[in-house]
Amino acid sequence: MAPQYAPSLRSRLPVVALLLETIFILFFAFYVEVQHIFSITFYAEFQDVHVMVFMGFGFLSTFLVRYGFSSTGFSLLVAALAVQWAIVFRVLLQLPYPGRITIERLVLAEMSAFSSLISMGVVIGKTNPVQLLLMSLMEVTGFILNEWLIQTLLKVKLKHIIMYLHIYGAFFGIMTSWTLYRKGIEPRHEKEKSDRKMTLFSFFGTLFLWIFWPSFNSAYLLNKDMDFAVPLNVICSTYLAMAVSAVTAIALSVLFNPRGKLNMRHVQNCILAGGVAVGGTMSTFPQPWVAMAVGLSAGIMSTLGHQYIKPLMEIVFKCHDTCSILSVHGLPGILGWFVRLFLQIANFDSTTIAVRFTVYHILILLITLASSLTMGVITGIILKWKLWRPPQDRKCFDDQAFWKFPHLAKHE
Amino acid sequence: MAPQYAPSLRSRLPVVALLLETIFILFFAFYVEVQHIFSITFYAEFQDVHVMVFMGFGFLSTFLVRYGFSSTGFSLLVAALAVQWAIVFRVLLQLPYPGRITIERLVLAEMSAFSSLISMGVVIGKTNPVQLLLMSLMEVTGFILNEWLIQTLLKVKLKHIIMYLHIYGAFFGIMTSWTLYRKGIEPRHEKEKSDRKMTLFSFFGTLFLWIFWPSFNSAYLLNKDMDFAVPLNVICSTYLAMAVSAVTAIALSVLFNPRGKLNMRHVQNCILAGGVAVGGTMSTFPQPWVAMAVGLSAGIMSTLGHQYIKPLMEIVFKCHDTCSILSVHGLPGILGWFVRLFLQIANFDSTTIAVRFTVYHILILLITLASSLTMGVITGIILKWKLWRPPQDRKCFDDQAFWKFPHLAKHE
Amino acid sequence: MAPQYAPSLRSRLPVVALLLETIFILFFAFYVEVQHIFSITFYAEFQDVHVMVFMGFGFLSTFLVRYGFSSTGFSLLVAALAVQWAIVFRVLLQLPYPGRITIERLVLAEMSAFSSLISMGVVIGKTNPVQLLLMSLMEVTGFILNEWLIQTLLKVKLKHIIMYLHIYGAFFGIMTSWTLYRKGIEPRHEKEKSDRKMTLFSFFGTLFLWIFWPSFNSAYLLNKDMDFAVPLNVICSTYLAMAVSAVTAIALSVLFNPRGKLNMRHVQNCILAGGVAVGGTMSTFPQPWVAMAVGLSAGIMSTLGHQYIKPLMEIVFKCHDTCSILSVHGLPGILGWFVRLFLQIANFDSTTIAVRFTVYHILILLITLASSLTMGVITGIILKWKLWRPPQDRKCFDDQAFWKFPHLAKHE
Repeated sequence: MAPQYAPSLRSRLPVVALLLETIFILFFAFYVEVQHIFSITFYAEFQDVHVMVFMGFGFLSTFLVRYGFSSTGFSLLVAALAVQWAIVFRVLLQLPYPGRITIERLVLAEMSAFSSLISMGVVIGKTNPVQLLLMSLMEVTGFILNEWLIQTLLKVKLKHIIMYLHIYGAFFGIMTSWTLYRKGIEPRHEKEKSDRKMTLFSFFGTLFLWIFWPSFNSAYLLNKDMDFAVPLNVICSTYLAMAVSAVTAIALSVLFNPRGKLNMRHVQNCILAGGVAVGGTMSTFPQPWVAMAVGLSAGIMSTLGHQYIKPLMEIVFKCHDTCSILSVHGLPGILGWFVRLFLQIANFDSTTIAVRFTVYHILILLITLASSLTMGVITGIILKWKLWRPPQDRKCFDDQAFWKFPHLAKHE
Repeated sequence: MAPQYAPSLRSRLPVVALLLETIFILFFAFYVEVQHIFSITFYAEFQDVHVMVFMGFGFLSTFLVRYGFSSTGFSLLVAALAVQWAIVFRVLLQLPYPGRITIERLVLAEMSAFSSLISMGVVIGKTNPVQLLLMSLMEVTGFILNEWLIQTLLKVKLKHIIMYLHIYGAFFGIMTSWTLYRKGIEPRHEKEKSDRKMTLFSFFGTLFLWIFWPSFNSAYLLNKDMDFAVPLNVICSTYLAMAVSAVTAIALSVLFNPRGKLNMRHVQNCILAGGVAVGGTMSTFPQPWVAMAVGLSAGIMSTLGHQYIKPLMEIVFKCHDTCSILSVHGLPGILGWFVRLFLQIANFDSTTIAVRFTVYHILILLITLASSLTMGVITGIILKWKLWRPPQDRKCFDDQAFWKFPHLAKHE
Repeated sequence: MAPQYAPSLRSRLPVVALLLETIFILFFAFYVEVQHIFSITFYAEFQDVHVMVFMGFGFLSTFLVRYGFSSTGFSLLVAALAVQWAIVFRVLLQLPYPGRITIERLVLAEMSAFSSLISMGVVIGKTNPVQLLLMSLMEVTGFILNEWLIQTLLKVKLKHIIMYLHIYGAFFGIMTSWTLYRKGIEPRHEKEKSDRKMTLFSFFGTLFLWIFWPSFNSAYLLNKDMDFAVPLNVICSTYLAMAVSAVTAIALSVLFNPRGKLNMRHVQNCILAGGVAVGGTMSTFPQPWVAMAVGLSAGIMSTLGHQYIKPLMEIVFKCHDTCSILSVHGLPGILGWFVRLFLQIANFDSTTIAVRFTVYHILILLITLASSLTMGVITGIILKWKLWRPPQDRKCFDDQAFWKFPHLAKHE
C-alpha cells in the first residue's frame, strides 16, 4: 500500500489568500484613506498589543512537539489577514466614506484578530490553513456584527463591548471544534504531545502575553480618553491581577497533583486568567485589592477548569480544546462579566437604574453568546466540507502535512 | 531499593503562596489605593523594565539543560510575589495612609524584584520553590530596610541608593549559597550541564536584559525628574557602556582560552557588566567616553571574575554560584561605587565637602554590605531547615523533582 | 593523521577588537559630548529599532543547525562595534566639534549597523568573526561615505538617502561573498542545514523584525519632524504592507511547491519584503492601498527571487548567499526605488521638474550601486588574506570552530 500523503493545498490556499488580498486592496483603493490629523503618543501601547498578537499568540501553541512551524506560521497568516478584514469590515459597517486609518483603528483591528486567534486555539492541529483562514474571517465577521448589533440596539459604547472578544472567541471556537469532532480519534490524538524545548518556546509566547496584558486592557481606552485616570487604573489593576493570578496558578497546580508536582500546561494557561477577567470587567476598579481578588478567583477558576472541565468536555460534550481556551478565555471572561455587574450595581444610588443596567448587561451577554454559538456551529459546518481538504486523522498535529523540510540535519 | 523521589511540595508550596496572597490582598484592601492624578508618559520605559524582570531573568538561567521549566517557572513565581511584597512593605515603612499605586511605585517594586532575582541566581538549581519564595521575601525585606535605614540615618535621596540593588542582591545570595553549601557534591553537580539550544534560550533572556538596560538605569529617574537631561545622559551612557562591554567580553573570552575559542557563559555574563557598573554609579557622566571606559573596565573585571574568582570561590570559600552573580552584579556594582566616588570628588571645590561625601559614601557601602551579608546568612540558616524539604543532592538541577511531564514525545 | 583544528583566533580577535575599542574611546574623549537639551518622546521607537538590530538580526540566522552560537554571538559583536564606528565616523565627517550624542544619532548608528548586518547575512557561516568585524567596518564606512557624497554632491536630504541601506548592504555583501567564493564546496556546504527548533529560533528573530518594522521605517522621521502626519503615514503604510507581504509570501510558497507544501525559508525571508520596499520608497503614500500593492509586489518579487534567482546566482554568478539577502533586501529595495520615482513623478506639475527629479534619482541609485559593488569587492579581496585565518571548508557553518562547549549533556 502506498503511503497516504496529506492532501495538497496547492489549488486551495494560494487562491483563497491571493483572492482575499486582491479584494482587500481594491476595497482600500476606493474606501480607505490615511488620517492626517493625528497624535502618536500611544504608539508604544499599540506596539505592545502588536507583539502580543503576533509574537505571543504566534508561539503560544508551539508546545505541540511536531507542530511548531504550523503553530507559528498559521498564526501569522491568520492574524495578518484578520487585521485587514477587520479594518475593511468596520469601514463597511460603521463609518461614512472615506474610512480613515488611524492607530486607534489598528488597535481595534488587532483586538479582532486576537479574538479570532482565541477561536483558532481550540481547533489548531486538527485543521488546515485554508480552514483556519475561513474560520478567522467568519469569527471576525461575527464579532464585529455582534458589536455593531449591540451598539445599534442597546446604544452601548464600543469601549464597553470590545472586551467581549474573549467570550466571543472562546465559545465560537468551542462550537466549531464540537462540530468538527472526529469520532474514534479524539480526545487524544496520536501526535498531540509536547517536549521540553517546544514547551519553553510556548512559555516564551505566554510570557509575552502575560507581560503586555496591561497594555492590552488599556490600549483602546488610551486612544479614546485623554483623561489618564481611567487607563492608569486599568493598567495598575491588570498588573496586580496578573501577578496574583500567576502565583495562584502555580500554587494550585501543585495542590492538584497527588505527588505535589507542577504541570507546565496549567501554569502556562492559568497565569493569563487574571488579565482576561480584569479586562472582561471593562470597568475601573474602586480599589486595587478588588482587582487582586479577581485575579485570585480567575486563577482558581481557570485551574479548576483545566483540571476538571476540560476532560469532561472532551468525553461528555465531544469537544476537543487544544489550547484549553474555555479555561483561559471563556470562564474568566464570564467572571469579568459578573464582576462588572457587581461593581456597577454597587455604584448606583437608585434601584431603577441598577435594574435597568442589569437587564442591559444580561442582554449583552445573551446576544453575544447566541451570536458566537450560532456562528461557531455554522463555521464548523462550512469547514466540514471535503472541498477544503482537511488533514487525515493521522496527519493531525503534524507539520509534515503542510511543510517541506529541506536540508534537515540527520537527527531530525 | 525503591527509587528515591524528590520530597513532595504539596503540603508546603500552596500553603505558603496562597497564605501570602491572602495577606497581601487584605493589606491592599486596607491600605492601598490607586493614584488618580497621574501621567503615563513613562509607561514605555516601565514596560522595558517589566520585560527585563519577567522575560530577561525568566530565561537567563535556562542554560541548565534539565532545568528549563524550573528556571522560567520559579523566576515568574518569585518575581510575581516579590513585586507585591515590595509594594506592601514600602507602603508599611514609608508612606502615610493611604498608600497609592503609581507607575513610579511599580518601577520601584520591579527593581526590588530584580534584586531578589539576582540573589536567586546564586542558589538556583539547589533549592526548591518554597525556599526561593522565602529567600525572595527576606531579600526584598532586607533591601528595603537597608534603603530606609540609609535614607533615615544619612538623609540620602532614594535615587542615590536604589542601584545598590546589584551589590545587595549579589552578596545576599552569595552568603545564602555559602550557608547552604552541600559537602561532597559541590562545586560540580552531576546535572549542572548545558546544551546548545538551552544556551540559546538563555542567550535570548540575556539579550533582553542587554537591550533594555538603558531603560533600567533611567526608569526611576524619568519618574522623578521632569528634567530630561539627567535620564538622557544615563540612557546614552548605559547604551555606550553596554556596547563596549559586549565587545570586551567577547574579546577577552577568546584571549583567556588557550585555543582561542569563545565561551558562551563568559559572553552571556560579561556583556551585562557595563550596564551594572554604569547604573551603580548613580551619577550622570560628564563625557560619554567615561561611561565607555567604565564599560571596558567592567567587561574586563567581570571576565576575570568569571575565569579566576568563581572557581576559587567554590574551592576556597565553599560557595557555589550557579549564575556567576559575583562577576556579573557584585564586582561591577563595586566598580560603579568607586566611579561615583571619583566623579563626585572631581566636582567638589572644597575639600571639606569632598571628605564629607567620601565618608558618607563609604558608610552607605558598609551598611549595605553588612546588611546584605547578615541577612544572607540568616536566610541561609532558615532555608536549611528540613521543614522546607529541599531537593536531595541527586535531584538538584533537575526539573523531574518538581514538574510533571505528561504526554512527552518518545525522544525526550 | 591528526584531526585538523580550526585556526585559533587568539592572536587576532582580541587585538582587533580591543584596539578598535581603545581608538573609539579616545576619539569619544576628544570629540563627543552628551547633548543636554533634548526630548525623549521617541525613546520607545528607538528601543524598537534597538530590538530589531540586536534581537531580530541576532536570531535571524540561527536556522543553521550547528551555528547558533556564532549566529547570535557574532551578530552582537559586529553590531556593537558597528554602532560605535558609525557614531565616530559620522562625527568625523559631518559635524563641527564637539559632536553630541542624541537619540537621533543613536538611531542613525543603529541603521548603519543594520546595513552591515545585511551584508553579514550573505557571508555568515563561511567567515570568522575577525573577518566579519572588518567587513562591518568597511561596510559602515562605505555606506556613510556614500551618504555624505550624495548629500554633498546632489544636496539631497539625509532622510531621502538613509533607506538606501538595504540596497547598499545587500550588494556590498553579495560582492564580498562573490570574491570569497570557495571552489568545489559551494553552493552547498556540508553543514549548512537546519532543524525544527533552530528554525523556530530563527522565526522568532524574523518576527521581531516583522513586528517592529513600522518603527524602523519611521524612527528617523520621528526625530526630524515634529509634524506627526509624515511618520503616521509611514507607520500605517508599513504596517499594511507587512500584513499583505506576509500573506503573499505564504500563499506563493504553497503555489511554488509541486506538492503544495510550505517552505519555512520562503516564509521567513519573504514576509519582510514589504517593509523593505515601503521603507525604500522614502515617501509618504497618497493612499494606503498603494502601500498594500507595494507589499504584494514585494512579496511576489522576493519569493520569485528566493525560488529562481538564488540557485542561479550560486551556479552561474558563483555567489553563495546564506540568508537570501538579495531577495529580502536587494530586490525589494530596488522596487522601493521605482515606487518612489513613480510616486514623485505623479505629483509634479511641470515636466522639467519631473525630469530633473528622475535624473537625480537615477544618479543616487547609480552612485550607491557603484559604491557598494566596489567596496564589496575591495572588502572581499582584503578578507581573502590568509592573515585573518578564515575557517577551512569543513569548518564552515560549524560552531566548533569558534566556541568551547564545556559541560554539555551527553546527547549533544
